[in-house]
Amino acid sequence: MINTPVEIKYQQLQAKLGYQFKDQGLLKQALSHRSVGAHNNERLEFLGDAILGLTVAEALYQLMPNVDEGVLSRTRSNLVCEATLAEIAEGWSLGECLILGQGEIKSGGHRKPSILSDAVEALIAAISLDDKLETAQHCVRRWYDDRLKVIQPLDRVKDAKSQLQEWVQKSQVELPLYEIVDTKGADHQREFVVKCVVPKKLPNGVLGEGSSRRKAEQAAAEAALNKLRK
Amino acid sequence: MINTPVEIKYQQLQAKLGYQFKDQGLLKQALSHRSVGAHNNERLEFLGDAILGLTVAEALYQLMPNVDEGVLSRTRSNLVCEATLAEIAEGWSLGECLILGQGEIKSGGHRKPSILSDAVEALIAAISLDDKLETAQHCVRRWYDDRLKVIQPLDRVKDAKSQLQEWVQKSQVELPLYEIVDTKGADHQREFVVKCVVPKKLPNGVLGEGSSRRKAEQAAAEAALNKLRK
Repeated sequence: MINTPVEIKYQQLQAKLGYQFKDQGLLKQALSHRSVGAHNNERLEFLGDAILGLTVAEALYQLMPNVDEGVLSRTRSNLVCEATLAEIAEGWSLGECLILGQGEIKSGGHRKPSILSDAVEALIAAISLDDKLETAQHCVRRWYDDRLKVIQPLDRVKDAKSQLQEWVQKSQVELPLYEIVDTKGADHQREFVVKCVVPKKLPNGVLGEGSSRRKAEQAAAEAALNKLRK
Repeated sequence: MINTPVEIKYQQLQAKLGYQFKDQGLLKQALSHRSVGAHNNERLEFLGDAILGLTVAEALYQLMPNVDEGVLSRTRSNLVCEATLAEIAEGWSLGECLILGQGEIKSGGHRKPSILSDAVEALIAAISLDDKLETAQHCVRRWYDDRLKVIQPLDRVKDAKSQLQEWVQKSQVELPLYEIVDTKGADHQREFVVKCVVPKKLPNGVLGEGSSRRKAEQAAAEAALNKLRK
């Protein structure tokens, strides 16, 4: 039996994924962008997104026993965002295996982060359906191994306010100022809006919201850090 | 050994959950609102939310083989929203078991949907940690059994545009009009903004966004339905 170039590509991909599909149809569906028509990976992506979200949540819950749910949630967002997933996809040369419609081929769909990231999520679901949830979770943990290893363990993870304070001290500007500018919502679901001003750097301030003053300040500090790092 | 009233309450709750905790400390943590201090259920809620999201996603993926990911996603949102979780909690009289700080006790925290719903998510994570993920998923499926049974199977689920059309026909007004009012983002991540006008009912129209014209129209139709049903 002679393998076609396409089959060789799929074999190489499965070697990189560390998973050999029993049902090659599922693999192909996971690689099919909606531009090819009805038999595409959008439903798989919906399921894969949930498996990924849970698997990373479980890992972080164990790796970071002393941080609050806000830090867990933000750390997870970074790990499951389009950019991270596209990076993982590029490590597998996944773009070469994508099945795209003519329009997407012409507009460089093989390199689009959104298409690559959706296909990674679809692959996760496809593995779960081809074998079982545990197998898909095992693959995800392996793919994320390097990224999870560098997670700052325990309480060494600095909160955003501390990070911002360090940043301004390095930059020799004055310390950031926090001020509640608004409170919204009924008594039992109060939302605080805090403005964080960094003198000379962000004189107009940036806003953060949260269900407590502390959380709103952290959110504002994070927004300020994001602006300053750009 | 004589059981205290509190212990009896916890025994009754566990009977309703269909799960007996090996580590009663985990059960208590899941019931502890942040108003009691550091040892609260917020981290568990983060994890439980992900388990719930995946479990309902898996169930819907199987129950609705012919709908697109937009319908899957909206159906899941309804099933995992605060109101649904609070309803489940009320079925267990969960309010009586919550551990709250003084302020929350005074302001009726035992009946707050947000606190009840967070505790349900925390309980899901606590079961997973006390035993294993599979057990937590099994419980979730049992708790959702009645709600999943009534899911419209297959393609009988109507999309929002068809539902809106039916609604206006019953109300004897003219058919809704859809118009693209804006497109945003770079070529490869285009976002469409569509206005849906229902003559005489929503003359100013309501907006919907999506990554394709079709999706934006569905989103606008859904927003229109929500307004009209109020």
